[in-house]
Amino acid sequence: MPLPIRKLDSTHADFQPSLTALLAFDAGTDDAIEKSVAAILADVKARGDSAVLEYTNRFDRIPNGGASGMADFDISQAELQAALDSLPAAQREALQTAAQRIRVFHERQKQELGGFTYTEPDGTVLGQKITPLDRVGIYVPGGKAAYPSSVLMNAIPAKVAGVAEIIMVVPTPDGIKNQMVLAAAAIAGVTRVITIGGAQAVGALAHGTATIAPVDKIVGPGNAYVAAAKRRVFGIVGIDMIAGPSEILIICDGSTDPDWVAMDLFSQAEHDELAQAILLCPDAAYIARVEASIEKLLPAMPRQDTIRTSLSERGALVKVRDMEEACRIANDIAAEHLEISAEQPQQWADRIRHAGAMFLGRFSSESLGDYCCGPNHVLPTSRTARFSSPLGVYDFQKRSSIIHVSEAGAQTLGRVAATLAYGEGLQAHARSAELRLKPQS
Amino acid sequence: MPLPIRKLDSTHADFQPSLTALLAFDAGTDDAIEKSVAAILADVKARGDSAVLEYTNRFDRIPNGGASGMADFDISQAELQAALDSLPAAQREALQTAAQRIRVFHERQKQELGGFTYTEPDGTVLGQKITPLDRVGIYVPGGKAAYPSSVLMNAIPAKVAGVAEIIMVVPTPDGIKNQMVLAAAAIAGVTRVITIGGAQAVGALAHGTATIAPVDKIVGPGNAYVAAAKRRVFGIVGIDMIAGPSEILIICDGSTDPDWVAMDLFSQAEHDELAQAILLCPDAAYIARVEASIEKLLPAMPRQDTIRTSLSERGALVKVRDMEEACRIANDIAAEHLEISAEQPQQWADRIRHAGAMFLGRFSSESLGDYCCGPNHVLPTSRTARFSSPLGVYDFQKRSSIIHVSEAGAQTLGRVAATLAYGEGLQAHARSAELRLKPQS
Repeated sequence: MPLPIRKLDSTHADFQPSLTALLAFDAGTDDAIEKSVAAILADVKARGDSAVLEYTNRFDRIPNGGASGMADFDISQAELQAALDSLPAAQREALQTAAQRIRVFHERQKQELGGFTYTEPDGTVLGQKITPLDRVGIYVPGGKAAYPSSVLMNAIPAKVAGVAEIIMVVPTPDGIKNQMVLAAAAIAGVTRVITIGGAQAVGALAHGTATIAPVDKIVGPGNAYVAAAKRRVFGIVGIDMIAGPSEILIICDGSTDPDWVAMDLFSQAEHDELAQAILLCPDAAYIARVEASIEKLLPAMPRQDTIRTSLSERGALVKVRDMEEACRIANDIAAEHLEISAEQPQQWADRIRHAGAMFLGRFSSESLGDYCCGPNHVLPTSRTARFSSPLGVYDFQKRSSIIHVSEAGAQTLGRVAATLAYGEGLQAHARSAELRLKPQS
Repeated sequence: MPLPIRKLDSTHADFQPSLTALLAFDAGTDDAIEKSVAAILADVKARGDSAVLEYTNRFDRIPNGGASGMADFDISQAELQAALDSLPAAQREALQTAAQRIRVFHERQKQELGGFTYTEPDGTVLGQKITPLDRVGIYVPGGKAAYPSSVLMNAIPAKVAGVAEIIMVVPTPDGIKNQMVLAAAAIAGVTRVITIGGAQAVGALAHGTATIAPVDKIVGPGNAYVAAAKRRVFGIVGIDMIAGPSEILIICDGSTDPDWVAMDLFSQAEHDELAQAILLCPDAAYIARVEASIEKLLPAMPRQDTIRTSLSERGALVKVRDMEEACRIANDIAAEHLEISAEQPQQWADRIRHAGAMFLGRFSSESLGDYCCGPNHVLPTSRTARFSSPLGVYDFQKRSSIIHVSEAGAQTLGRVAATLAYGEGLQAHARSAELRLKPQS
């Protein structure tokens, strides 16, 4: 059966509303999940380890009658190392290469974010101090969607930032551990791995228990329960963005092998039926060739059902007037992943203001970036690239302002502050500044 | 009547639980406010300007039967400039001095955040591009708690970041405009000022209406309705942190004039009955002198009722073992404002990992930083300085990753990516990388 992928044309009158409708996505909230998560979090806050133990034994169907204590959930560093040693050489080396490249890129990111101080003529010193977070939690999904690459992408930036303690939680449904995930934890230098998950793990990390120290931030993907729990503990701890479905937008000038473009669209669509894959191209004949490639390549894909649903319900092949217009539309879409598959891609990249990551040139497939180029694969989705950034070292550091006013500085600044404070009706602010003034001679 | 301010001693057995109880603050949520805000946001999203007009006329009691159209709510640049011109010279000059100093500090911040690219031996280019947000909304409270300093502190970083459009909303209850606030908007270079407020203003900024373009981020303080609305639109737009009550923590070695320390405590306590002012000091005799200063100075303060409630319900004078211990406790408290009022304060500042802003030395009263030192006065509260930063230029910029893989790079990276993708069961990812491989010769 032919794939009913949507085709749009930017010259049509209804193009803008059609595009808006295509992009619309409302994650919504599920009342049953919200209530369940609220109850679990309250219980974990109140009862600590006992609650975590009970929920984990029940929800994760821990075998042999369940764990008898929290210590059963800890995975030793020796076991992590054994998991790494047990991998086939190709997998082990691929993980190590990816980790090394991710480390190099994020070290570069760290150099970028520096503290500073400057001294004014009267001796007043102003500045900004950068410090890492003390302790972070990394949530790693268990079961089928267990991705070792996500362990690297979440843990390495924290490590590079200088976070002293990185606590990873990963559920083990039916007691099954994913060796590649454990190996990735060994490579990334995770401090502690605990085999718990769900809202109960988020609650334990946020509030702390007798056996788990409270963290300062929780990052990493999870199911609807985990996402709801992260939203609820936000403020007690920091969280990363709540990710929406994954997205790829490809701008192609019509000169790339259409099979490559078709497969790049698949690589996003295979994640999830809600994933979104869109092509913008000024060449109608080329779009037809991509469509033919899709028809040709799809039957061989193991995840073809997911790809088919994603492409037909949320995908689109869009004929645009020219590459300039493609860039304008791309800025409106603000995609998580933007491929510019074109000759001399930099000229178009210079026009892009909003994208999570830009993949330039026909050899930069998104999949390379997902695993091993070095930049992070945790990226802003659902148009949030308009205002947010890839996960990075900066997410594991924060700034403090430094204000060291000299006696001379207090004389000039004190008068300004007092004038403004009286203007706002804050007399103690004004008096606090005035007390530092020397009597006028 | 003597002020019943709490006194704690770090050597007492119950010190830690007492401190924890003192710091505990749960903003909670009010169901009635949540429901009301959800309804207003949905209505503004559905009906746009008509809804904003109706709510504004009703909630802000706009005189003369209310505004007849949205255009009535716009304040022209000429009116902003007239407000500035009409201020007494001292106020105008104080605002201009403060703005200039804030600009200089934030320009320094902008230099710190740079994009980068680097080229690998095989020609692969990796990097990070920095771009400003396109359009931001700044919420400024109206009525009594209208603070021109907040206009400067929110708008100037956005301006320095390169944000093209800065839309300020400020309600005018009973139609009354605050001239100092309008003057601050003129100085800060706000693009447009609209006299609307509440959840309806937040909804208009987030969703856009026929007369208001949707923004990418909303910053600035507001009442419980505004805070609830900001939480709800988070994800559609970016928001700054939801601020808790203001806090000051003073570490004093006992050598500062106790009147200065008392007044600095007042300057936080006068904001709000829930504000928190705490002194840590190793010298019991000095603490007694500060207490005497509090008793002496309080009766002269116009906001003495607020100060009294704040100090007695949430304040504390804490005797610590030594300055080292004071620094450890300060890291646990992670205060919004931390004064280190001591000889050679830098030695103690070096030990501080968590604070929104550090005020070093006895001349650096927090009030100077609130108005005119240069660093931002929008700071993380409620212990969130453990993981978050002052408002800054970086809040109005975001990063995009750049990945430009060379043909040679695609050969080595493609094999690594394919190995990992097969390991995760994502075959389209693997094939997408493999299609770029040249046939092995």
